[in-house]
Amino acid sequence: MQGKLYLVGIGPGSREHTTRRAVEAIRESDVVVGYTTYLRLVEDLLSGKEVLASGMRREVERARQAVELALGGKKVAIVSSGDSGIYGMASAVFEYLAENRLELEVEVVPGVTSALAAAALLGAPLGNDFAVISLSDLLVPWQEIERRVELAAEGDFVIVLYNPRSSRRDWQLGRVREIVLEHRPQATPVGLVRNAYRDGCAVEVTTLREMNPAKADMLTTLIIGSSRSFVYAGRIITPRGYRSKYSMRG
Amino acid sequence: MQGKLYLVGIGPGSREHTTRRAVEAIRESDVVVGYTTYLRLVEDLLSGKEVLASGMRREVERARQAVELALGGKKVAIVSSGDSGIYGMASAVFEYLAENRLELEVEVVPGVTSALAAAALLGAPLGNDFAVISLSDLLVPWQEIERRVELAAEGDFVIVLYNPRSSRRDWQLGRVREIVLEHRPQATPVGLVRNAYRDGCAVEVTTLREMNPAKADMLTTLIIGSSRSFVYAGRIITPRGYRSKYSMRG
Repeated sequence: MQGKLYLVGIGPGSREHTTRRAVEAIRESDVVVGYTTYLRLVEDLLSGKEVLASGMRREVERARQAVELALGGKKVAIVSSGDSGIYGMASAVFEYLAENRLELEVEVVPGVTSALAAAALLGAPLGNDFAVISLSDLLVPWQEIERRVELAAEGDFVIVLYNPRSSRRDWQLGRVREIVLEHRPQATPVGLVRNAYRDGCAVEVTTLREMNPAKADMLTTLIIGSSRSFVYAGRIITPRGYRSKYSMRG
Repeated sequence: MQGKLYLVGIGPGSREHTTRRAVEAIRESDVVVGYTTYLRLVEDLLSGKEVLASGMRREVERARQAVELALGGKKVAIVSSGDSGIYGMASAVFEYLAENRLELEVEVVPGVTSALAAAALLGAPLGNDFAVISLSDLLVPWQEIERRVELAAEGDFVIVLYNPRSSRRDWQLGRVREIVLEHRPQATPVGLVRNAYRDGCAVEVTTLREMNPAKADMLTTLIIGSSRSFVYAGRIITPRGYRSKYSMRG
């Protein structure tokens, strides 16, 4: 008999912002797989289960292990923070299934991804169209990432940056700032959220001019406003549409 | 004494995909405000509360009412489906506060927005950078929307479309298809999800060539894959990076 594989997004970290389905999926599983950091966030759900913790950059290995256990009849949950489909484990698992022509029951359990968690803590920066870009160049050439930043800046998209900076990758965020400044005012609001809804949660609202790229790291989500975004009472607000139209409707 | 305003995203609709914080925020409130459709999804939480239901296109009026009640000392929850910050009520409320120079305690409670709900039901279409665009031209001129579609297509972003089509707005999605076809193969996967995680939930996987714009409506979220997205076993998968690199790491 075949088992089942759950790809579970547990949200930003605090249990409050996890969905009921995510908790249930972990409870229903025989085996729980994930980064040590994420497993710690759901520690209380793990008693009596087989737990396979692993370090960073072992996505394919983890996908393979989880799939094999599920094919062998186990219920297996792979845990990601945020949403499993956004730079999480979901595509690694489906790619593995496709490459090996395997069939398996898979349920993706969506979660609050960091773009949404960061936005909620910043106010309403995502009130209009936005682009989500990861600055990690481990799997995508930097040239392609830079091209996307350029086009998103040109289109006046609000820009959400995942993995904005690491110790090894220290100049790219400064380059992003330069590119966006070619298209938007210096006073454009920028929000940095570190450890959203976790211990050490820090929220900073600044501007393209003032922002210090060195303050960001791999635990930071960064949101750059559109040309219409503004700050009021410490919050970043991107209007849904043109102010004049809104006012007409008030 | 001032009250508090919660901007609550209840997720796609089924209670399973609502966060605990969203349920708590509604429970803690004296007054609950929202579209009739969304209030129906949380009906069981409303007993003993003042409920202000309203129809579509009354965002500013609802924002004003809710803010005034909270300034008067009530705890007020404004309920949106998905996430309140994504084409929801959050920016309308903060704009209203800013325009009237008001100060109020506001908590945004993030939720699973339809991009994430649709993606989970489709597989892993958001495995790489993506752009979120609303095709509604009520508050944004069509010209600007079309320009964003053009740039997102050029940048090979996965494209998520909210409000892809209404009875009044019947040609825009066909135009989007044409634009994307200038940049991507005819076989590019397209997913349509209607009523994600609600009664009548329907998931369709098709291609840019085959897609029929007339099948989409205001309850549909549409996801157009990047040039690297592919379909396996009825699922849309966008690889996180270049296949060769992934395999090297396996």
